[in-house]
Amino acid sequence: MRVFIAGIDGYLGWALAQYMTQQGHTVAGADALMRRQWVAEMDSYSAIPIANHEERMAAFEAEFGTNLDFRVGDLTDYDFVKTCLEDFQPDAIVHLAQMPSAPYSMLDNKHAVWTQVNNITTNLNILYAIKDVVPNAHLVKLGTMGEYGQPNVDIPEGFFDVEFNGRQDTLWFPRAAGSWYHQSKVHDSHNTYFTTKIWNLRATDIMQGVVFGTTYPEMNENPHLRTRLDFDQSFGTAINRFCAQAVVGHPLTLYGAGTMKRAFLPLRDSMRCLTLAVENPATAGEFRVFNQFAESYSIVELAYIVQSVGQEIGLDVQVKHYDNPRVEKEEHYYNPIRENLDRIGYVPTTDVKSEIKVMLKDLIQFKERIEAKKQLLVPDIRWDGSHQRSKELNLPETVQ
Amino acid sequence: MRVFIAGIDGYLGWALAQYMTQQGHTVAGADALMRRQWVAEMDSYSAIPIANHEERMAAFEAEFGTNLDFRVGDLTDYDFVKTCLEDFQPDAIVHLAQMPSAPYSMLDNKHAVWTQVNNITTNLNILYAIKDVVPNAHLVKLGTMGEYGQPNVDIPEGFFDVEFNGRQDTLWFPRAAGSWYHQSKVHDSHNTYFTTKIWNLRATDIMQGVVFGTTYPEMNENPHLRTRLDFDQSFGTAINRFCAQAVVGHPLTLYGAGTMKRAFLPLRDSMRCLTLAVENPATAGEFRVFNQFAESYSIVELAYIVQSVGQEIGLDVQVKHYDNPRVEKEEHYYNPIRENLDRIGYVPTTDVKSEIKVMLKDLIQFKERIEAKKQLLVPDIRWDGSHQRSKELNLPETVQ
Repeated sequence: MRVFIAGIDGYLGWALAQYMTQQGHTVAGADALMRRQWVAEMDSYSAIPIANHEERMAAFEAEFGTNLDFRVGDLTDYDFVKTCLEDFQPDAIVHLAQMPSAPYSMLDNKHAVWTQVNNITTNLNILYAIKDVVPNAHLVKLGTMGEYGQPNVDIPEGFFDVEFNGRQDTLWFPRAAGSWYHQSKVHDSHNTYFTTKIWNLRATDIMQGVVFGTTYPEMNENPHLRTRLDFDQSFGTAINRFCAQAVVGHPLTLYGAGTMKRAFLPLRDSMRCLTLAVENPATAGEFRVFNQFAESYSIVELAYIVQSVGQEIGLDVQVKHYDNPRVEKEEHYYNPIRENLDRIGYVPTTDVKSEIKVMLKDLIQFKERIEAKKQLLVPDIRWDGSHQRSKELNLPETVQ
Repeated sequence: MRVFIAGIDGYLGWALAQYMTQQGHTVAGADALMRRQWVAEMDSYSAIPIANHEERMAAFEAEFGTNLDFRVGDLTDYDFVKTCLEDFQPDAIVHLAQMPSAPYSMLDNKHAVWTQVNNITTNLNILYAIKDVVPNAHLVKLGTMGEYGQPNVDIPEGFFDVEFNGRQDTLWFPRAAGSWYHQSKVHDSHNTYFTTKIWNLRATDIMQGVVFGTTYPEMNENPHLRTRLDFDQSFGTAINRFCAQAVVGHPLTLYGAGTMKRAFLPLRDSMRCLTLAVENPATAGEFRVFNQFAESYSIVELAYIVQSVGQEIGLDVQVKHYDNPRVEKEEHYYNPIRENLDRIGYVPTTDVKSEIKVMLKDLIQFKERIEAKKQLLVPDIRWDGSHQRSKELNLPETVQ
């Protein structure tokens, strides 16, 4: 199939371009390379050194024997989006092109507005370009499990059957996101659903759990083809950040009690699921929601898994609690449902320990790079709008 | 109380500035005067001639004996919003400053993106400015009943108690809006709710029905103080448009069968309800939703009410069906709940016939102005993105 990846330079996008090419698909994509700037703005960089655009292009051609149609451009420019789709005529668009960090979006008014404007505009442009150019193409849009928030009921896949005042309907499951970034994804989900109704577009909205890991099946060893791995407070996600902390001997930074639960999946499963979604498209007018994760854990459970795996390979890993810079419930019910992906062939990787071991061994090679940014490992972007580094909390040691 | 009206130059804003001043409140506001430009872009104007900014200011001072602090400026500029609130120190902010037209937002990609960016940015700026400058001030945010869409269950005030898979929770009632404009209000509702949770702001989200009418209690007769009344396909709402059509002998333009239902309220009730909301503020951290309407009607019922009232005053009013430029269900259940406003003293005006009679008599004075724009009375902005004037449908005459 012809697959256009919006956001092809990012953590998932660059890996997916290679993975899907290996699976026999024809890949193209676009990216404004902004992720590199945002992470630099956080005074950080990828723990794994990444090649610049030209090096990536050359390495891709050398390894895969084909030129990658990767256009550097800004998807908030409608004419650019339209031209990309006109030229490539994709069967599917995988839309990963968004500013993906909660803390970055919570920095201040300017970052909040910019995040929502950027993400919403990009998504609206892609929706209009599909309608105008390739109305039968299937949009696979990356959302997040964080759109749902922390309801006290099971989390269905997008919709649920309810009875209210004696009448029944199948309704949109309410979203209750916890940052301006997560809210932008909620807005995108609403906007995308609307186009399936008025324009008969085909869309799969991926409610993805937190991705972790540095490798994926048949990952190419060429260093110019490696994908990024962030560990700063904004662009580093939970397990990735913990693993980076573990290799440099910094305590794992649990926010608050760390008892809040999240859904997770290894990078390899993200690649597999996105490919399954593309290969099994939604029908015309269908808005399909996939809860895309392998397993759920509390953050504190994961920290102790990282600690124990670290010990196995000789790392001395401490776990510490810091006052939570976010506003969220720490104790809550959490039971997301995952059925749609299983139905099209997804078998989750449940051996999180092995994944983490691979990752720690990988990151040890880049210890010095992480070490040099050690001062960034404790968060200072707070949900109340202030900027103050979180303090260590004196909580009783959690039982593993 | 000190009340800041964002969008003070509009249909509701300019009336509300006067109404609340009469009620003894101290009013200030801001507006970029964009509504005048959008309507001009539709090649139209207000049926009731409206004064320019300087004339309005002079007339306000002459009639109310006080200078109105009305700043002309763009609320997408955060520094402007912040300065307004710093200088005025309001107890309440009534936020009406949005692009309010569904068809305008559906014109094309450019208008869709602009609508969402403008509305979301303005609202985010107001939220941040409240947090930064007047954290105890109460935000009264204008949403729309259109946020809810057409669910097959009763429409509660923002939240509902549900049971799902054996567990209970009070959840956000899902929004399912039918245009990019309505979607922008859904996004604003989500964003506003979030700030009541993380910043403890006080907010009332007004899900307002379709407003109609040209007058409000003790309306000043000075022509420089009159508020606008739009009748073009984009900025004219159902009853207002029908009344304008009736006075010039144009058939009332029912979209499709016209059997879709909406909640309505006269302009006078909108003024009364907004004032009640301001005078009975939400508590810190409270996100309160008001379903603000007097009564529900199908559009076809209203058309025949306008016809019969028109006949009483000697107008020959025809009702015709046109193919519906929108994508919406024409037959649907509709039962919005209204309890919160009643609890603080709202008594709805249920005599819609008398309201319409006042309005028709008022508009007859401006017959020539409407006549000159007669070619605009049949819609040509279609939800599928095309632009084609709706054709008359041969539907059997509806029984009144």
